[in-house]
Amino acid sequence: MQPFTAQKISRVRKSDRAAYDSKSVFAILDEGLVGQVGFVAGNRPIVIPMIYARVGETVYLHGARATRFVKALRTGAPVCLGVTLVDGLVLARSAFHSSVNYRSVVLHGEAVETKDEAEREIALEAITNHLAPGRWDEVRPSTARELRATSVLRMTIDAASCKYRSGPPVDDEEDYDLPIWAGVIPFSADAGAPQADDRLLPEVETPASVARLVEIVNGR
Amino acid sequence: MQPFTAQKISRVRKSDRAAYDSKSVFAILDEGLVGQVGFVAGNRPIVIPMIYARVGETVYLHGARATRFVKALRTGAPVCLGVTLVDGLVLARSAFHSSVNYRSVVLHGEAVETKDEAEREIALEAITNHLAPGRWDEVRPSTARELRATSVLRMTIDAASCKYRSGPPVDDEEDYDLPIWAGVIPFSADAGAPQADDRLLPEVETPASVARLVEIVNGR
Repeated sequence: MQPFTAQKISRVRKSDRAAYDSKSVFAILDEGLVGQVGFVAGNRPIVIPMIYARVGETVYLHGARATRFVKALRTGAPVCLGVTLVDGLVLARSAFHSSVNYRSVVLHGEAVETKDEAEREIALEAITNHLAPGRWDEVRPSTARELRATSVLRMTIDAASCKYRSGPPVDDEEDYDLPIWAGVIPFSADAGAPQADDRLLPEVETPASVARLVEIVNGR
Repeated sequence: MQPFTAQKISRVRKSDRAAYDSKSVFAILDEGLVGQVGFVAGNRPIVIPMIYARVGETVYLHGARATRFVKALRTGAPVCLGVTLVDGLVLARSAFHSSVNYRSVVLHGEAVETKDEAEREIALEAITNHLAPGRWDEVRPSTARELRATSVLRMTIDAASCKYRSGPPVDDEEDYDLPIWAGVIPFSADAGAPQADDRLLPEVETPASVARLVEIVNGR
């Protein structure tokens, strides 16, 4: 694949906390669930949360055809997608060195609406399976009306970077002598027990995909 | 307080899933930890993750004085802050009605650097205490060198909206007869046991603020 352009816009200050390789970028994208999509409308920045999916080197977004966002982007527009996973609070002995452990990716590219039916189906399957792996094969097939109402946007990845921080606080050397508690409070996104819909038919059991998803989320 | 202007840029399609009152907006802002800050640089949207804090009707951001982001914003620029809390996956009987339960806020305003030392201290205290309530009084005082290296940006809230979804899937009436599992997988951000720094002085005990923070996070 073509290497991503190192992101020059937001300069990275600590090189040990940034990466530009596709493996690091894709891992965070795949683990994330909701991204924040930035675009420009009337010279103003707009940031909205969206679900997404990665297929190879492409990111797909989708939305109701009539939304302003889809209308603004469908003919091609610069887009920025940010996905951040919070891994913990870093409580240092000073406010200055206190921080957050996180893994974050920022993608820059262009979003265009795709009308290709095969690509649209690939994208919708990927978005559904990104929410819950294997789910696409469990739900009833999409109807023509639903497909007409849905726009699929293909976002190219023209530049990408990931930033992260992990590990304990890094305090000024003289501060280690202070009688101040310091450490990390780990954070994780956990899945609870699946709550079956009240109107579930009595013979329907929880599918393996749901149990697997809970395991995946809680095993991270 | 002055009411927020209803956000017109990203039109809300389902009015039962949006709110513009400050109480709803502030609750999400206060529970969130990392926001995604959008701004425009060279006609391109940039989205970067940042910690923040709310003080009354103002949001404060901070950053190293030398970062491109701070340089771009310090003289005043339109900024958009998105904060999203993911509460669960909504697995409907169709892909079309599958969704995410979430609470999300989008703020529009301007960010300007403040040089007022009293305001800067209020902001840095608020950001530190937003990470961990009460932490500001536990850490060693900031040094003049640290304060010089840190820029504080005041973001006005000119418009705000929150969007959310909660509850079970809402399927098409005829789909309730399908033998397909549907329901919600609840998600939560959980805090694990605090990991004390290896170089902690032996007599230092875990402060009440840390235990309280774990309780707050896990009690949500």
